[in-house]
Amino acid sequence: MHEIDFPSDVQATLTIDLGRIINNYQNCIKLAGDTKCAAMVKADAYGMGIAQVAPALFHQAGCKIFFVANLVEAIKLRQYVPEAVIYVLNGAFSEHLDYFVRYNIRPVLNDLKQIELWAKFENSDRPQCAVHFDTGINRLGLSPKETTFFIGNTDLRRQLDISLIMSHLACSDDPNNPMNKQQRDDFRAITHHFPNVTASLANSGGILLGSDYHFDLARPGLLMFGGDPRIAPRLSPIAGNIRPAYHISGKILQIRRLEGGQSVGYGATWTAKSPRQIATVNIGYADGYLQMFNNCGLAYIHNTMVPIVGRVSMDMIAVDVTDIDPNKISTGCDVELLGEHITLEMASEVSNLSQYEILTGVKERYQRIYK
Amino acid sequence: MHEIDFPSDVQATLTIDLGRIINNYQNCIKLAGDTKCAAMVKADAYGMGIAQVAPALFHQAGCKIFFVANLVEAIKLRQYVPEAVIYVLNGAFSEHLDYFVRYNIRPVLNDLKQIELWAKFENSDRPQCAVHFDTGINRLGLSPKETTFFIGNTDLRRQLDISLIMSHLACSDDPNNPMNKQQRDDFRAITHHFPNVTASLANSGGILLGSDYHFDLARPGLLMFGGDPRIAPRLSPIAGNIRPAYHISGKILQIRRLEGGQSVGYGATWTAKSPRQIATVNIGYADGYLQMFNNCGLAYIHNTMVPIVGRVSMDMIAVDVTDIDPNKISTGCDVELLGEHITLEMASEVSNLSQYEILTGVKERYQRIYK
Repeated sequence: MHEIDFPSDVQATLTIDLGRIINNYQNCIKLAGDTKCAAMVKADAYGMGIAQVAPALFHQAGCKIFFVANLVEAIKLRQYVPEAVIYVLNGAFSEHLDYFVRYNIRPVLNDLKQIELWAKFENSDRPQCAVHFDTGINRLGLSPKETTFFIGNTDLRRQLDISLIMSHLACSDDPNNPMNKQQRDDFRAITHHFPNVTASLANSGGILLGSDYHFDLARPGLLMFGGDPRIAPRLSPIAGNIRPAYHISGKILQIRRLEGGQSVGYGATWTAKSPRQIATVNIGYADGYLQMFNNCGLAYIHNTMVPIVGRVSMDMIAVDVTDIDPNKISTGCDVELLGEHITLEMASEVSNLSQYEILTGVKERYQRIYK
Repeated sequence: MHEIDFPSDVQATLTIDLGRIINNYQNCIKLAGDTKCAAMVKADAYGMGIAQVAPALFHQAGCKIFFVANLVEAIKLRQYVPEAVIYVLNGAFSEHLDYFVRYNIRPVLNDLKQIELWAKFENSDRPQCAVHFDTGINRLGLSPKETTFFIGNTDLRRQLDISLIMSHLACSDDPNNPMNKQQRDDFRAITHHFPNVTASLANSGGILLGSDYHFDLARPGLLMFGGDPRIAPRLSPIAGNIRPAYHISGKILQIRRLEGGQSVGYGATWTAKSPRQIATVNIGYADGYLQMFNNCGLAYIHNTMVPIVGRVSMDMIAVDVTDIDPNKISTGCDVELLGEHITLEMASEVSNLSQYEILTGVKERYQRIYK
């Protein structure tokens, strides 16, 4: 078959504003009181595309340190930022050690087994490493018992070349949760044993908790893309002019008039009480627009906020457009589902999905545009 | 950069059994009483991979007719099955007409505007088309009023070359819903006006509703991949030996002992009541394993069903493995999240996600294996 020519404007569109990601990153540094910031770009840069986001941050925003979840993500990232420092959060396993050397990737060591493995890994080009101390989230990282053992074992510590120590906050989205202070204090106590090593605690939520959470290096993720990590209700807007870098839009496929009593969509979960105009739009849960938006999602068309009615289908949603002047709306019209007018915070509040899940939920089917 | 070498077994794994998809498709034909079946392969074949699934169905299962949602999906599909009949459910729009000719794709015409557009489209290679009559789902398709007009307009009908008429059931997942019979009867009445045209009503749910729903062509989707479209509680297992074609597994990254009172994960939503063994596994919502599984998901390890505890993270889940013999479990162990032991039906029941959403939710990050 000859070269394939795809029409544009057929599928729903995800537009990613790299300029805003760069601005948001720089605002993260300000919000963190000029603390150095790494960029969290796991999960394909939160769905926004690591191939585009990482080089933009490296070359245009001066970000030199990146975190990803696993070694495959790290090896992909290495193509896009050959000179950056890259950390793998999931750590190192014996069958993959050579990859860390070949692609100059640093593991975040999460338990004594990984530490011993790395300590015994004899290779003149072995990269530096990070050590993750768990202070309460209980996912990855040295337990308190392992932490005490490791701090006291100077032989073992000497065999590593530690460039970073870190921990991870469990409840940073809730500024009033007492666990934040406990984790901060426990991590601070650990840092005293590593006076010359970079210390990192704050994710996006941690950045907003204040200067005693910032240590030497912050690790923003959601904030870079324009989300607000704090759980609702938020008392104040984010300082520092963080703006949405994401925009998701669909197109109207068809507009139909419903009489009162007629229902819409699978399971007939929504019934018109009076005659309504219903627009069918080309986005569905197979794009990542999930069924948690059934009968509660919002759409923005021609300066008007309108409700999604019925269930989200695999490839379509139905929007009640009765309130929009019929002369201003037709097949092919743009419909914003996420962006400037329907922010992640709003979408999260109506759907009960987390902002993180909405953002990383974007799927391959979108037509992607970078600007 | 030289050729990149990715390690295996780093990311969670999605295994797709093409043999089972073929068997399930053939069982769909039996369930539909030997009615001919097309294959619904929109949304990248429900997430299972259209590049692999479509040729397997075409060459090994004898499936010659395929449906996708939009024109981009159709053009991709054309590469994989050059000789198949391909229908686009979203219909035809003026700016894309030439693509239908170039790639020999048939539109499903959804309203009078599309019908008139296609009728006036002068091209000696214009493909045949389908017409979609809405009988109650109110998403796409000719309204009852348009249907009456179109049936009576023999001139317009003569200008089209209709290969298929279709409608779509709104409530086929609920055999007791009276809407099913109403839609069937309305569609039957329409078919009488098109005596020589193939008629299609039944999706997977419709196939299970019985022979008077089958008409000339069924359009299975979920059943082919091993899901059961009927809402719970199901009174009987599916006849015809439909089996899961999907298998999702992760690997244990770390195992830790928790004391009573310690919590797990973001928001500390789960607290151990007694000492527990907790395994952290390399799958999260960025893989498509959604947060609806928070504190209710199931994992299957070493012949034992165990609970997911705490929130699903972007890249990880925590599993309570206390009930598994500690000698049989370690870092690197396989963990089934979906498949033979945790079917789509079970996953759907614990999470309240639809089976369709769980299946199509699978994301790019999985290591994919076809067998």
